[in-house]
Amino acid sequence: MKKFKSLFVCLSVIAISFFVSSTAISKVVMDDIKLPEPSVTGGTPIMTAFKNRHSSLKFSSKKEIPLQVLSELLWAADGINRPDGKRTAPSALNSHVITIYTVLKDGIYKYNPQMHTLEAFSKEDVRPIIGTKAPVILLYSANLTRQSKYLSAVDCGFIGQNVYLYSAANNLNTIFLYGVNSSALNYKLELKLGEEILFAQIVGYE
Amino acid sequence: MKKFKSLFVCLSVIAISFFVSSTAISKVVMDDIKLPEPSVTGGTPIMTAFKNRHSSLKFSSKKEIPLQVLSELLWAADGINRPDGKRTAPSALNSHVITIYTVLKDGIYKYNPQMHTLEAFSKEDVRPIIGTKAPVILLYSANLTRQSKYLSAVDCGFIGQNVYLYSAANNLNTIFLYGVNSSALNYKLELKLGEEILFAQIVGYE
Repeated sequence: MKKFKSLFVCLSVIAISFFVSSTAISKVVMDDIKLPEPSVTGGTPIMTAFKNRHSSLKFSSKKEIPLQVLSELLWAADGINRPDGKRTAPSALNSHVITIYTVLKDGIYKYNPQMHTLEAFSKEDVRPIIGTKAPVILLYSANLTRQSKYLSAVDCGFIGQNVYLYSAANNLNTIFLYGVNSSALNYKLELKLGEEILFAQIVGYE
Repeated sequence: MKKFKSLFVCLSVIAISFFVSSTAISKVVMDDIKLPEPSVTGGTPIMTAFKNRHSSLKFSSKKEIPLQVLSELLWAADGINRPDGKRTAPSALNSHVITIYTVLKDGIYKYNPQMHTLEAFSKEDVRPIIGTKAPVILLYSANLTRQSKYLSAVDCGFIGQNVYLYSAANNLNTIFLYGVNSSALNYKLELKLGEEILFAQIVGYE
């Protein structure tokens, strides 16, 4: 009987270890992406960008977005644009509660503006929830323990318009999604209590 | 007695006419402003505008904003940028519930994007409510009978960021005010039931 008990404990330990390691593996196989330095001067004249600003749902699933373009897109969206750490988008009461989760083909990455990196976050495929095979989806989450949903919505607007204008200036199509299945996304991303995906924005080439 | 009665009626009519005409005069002395054609090409390169995007509360009350600059600022904010009437800022469900009331030295004007004019709206001075003597204040109102306050807030963010970027590209200072005395502003502007000032943005030269 004692033998069976120790065998059972042994098997349980193996099973648990296997479960833990497989979970760990699914987290580990993605690497962080160090984004190349964005070119922070030049580009399309701003009035032309305003002129070309539009929403489009036409996205090719085959045309990838080069890493340099993704780097500039995220920097333009909500990157650090001054030595004191201030950003391209303002934030209500300087609360900076918005996180941009960047959905790429192989998984979800968390944009870290301070390091200008994409941190490997999850291998879950949330593209079916959004209903697109576009190469990039930006998920705008808010930490609602620190800011109201109402003011967080304005901050998402600031970031979203940066993405619209960068896209207009670089022949990218984009559309801001006002209505997303937040519950499904929060669940898939295993967001902390109080953090919530409010909106999404799809980006890609036609 | 009859004579007194008719004299009284007569005087009342004169008094009422005077009151009505004087009210009318206070509405009439302001003219609509036909904005000059905005230059919709050229301007600062967009990456430089992202780089220079910042909030500032420094406004000179003496340095006026030229009409050409005001024209381009409003067009960039939420003007018509396509032949089908679509705009520089997106709008939730294409509802376009945001109106930009533009506060200048002599009163308040309503921006009409279709005509690209500033329609004389009120001679009330609301600058003390905002607490600034800056040459231009944009008041963002929403028609809440047609859209939620939450989604209207996102749309104000889109417009606000356009103003930030146009300002960054044209040496203008600006700051988006998340908290304004809506009740006082709604009252002064005599807004219709369901219309509400949500946010404001100050623009001027340093």
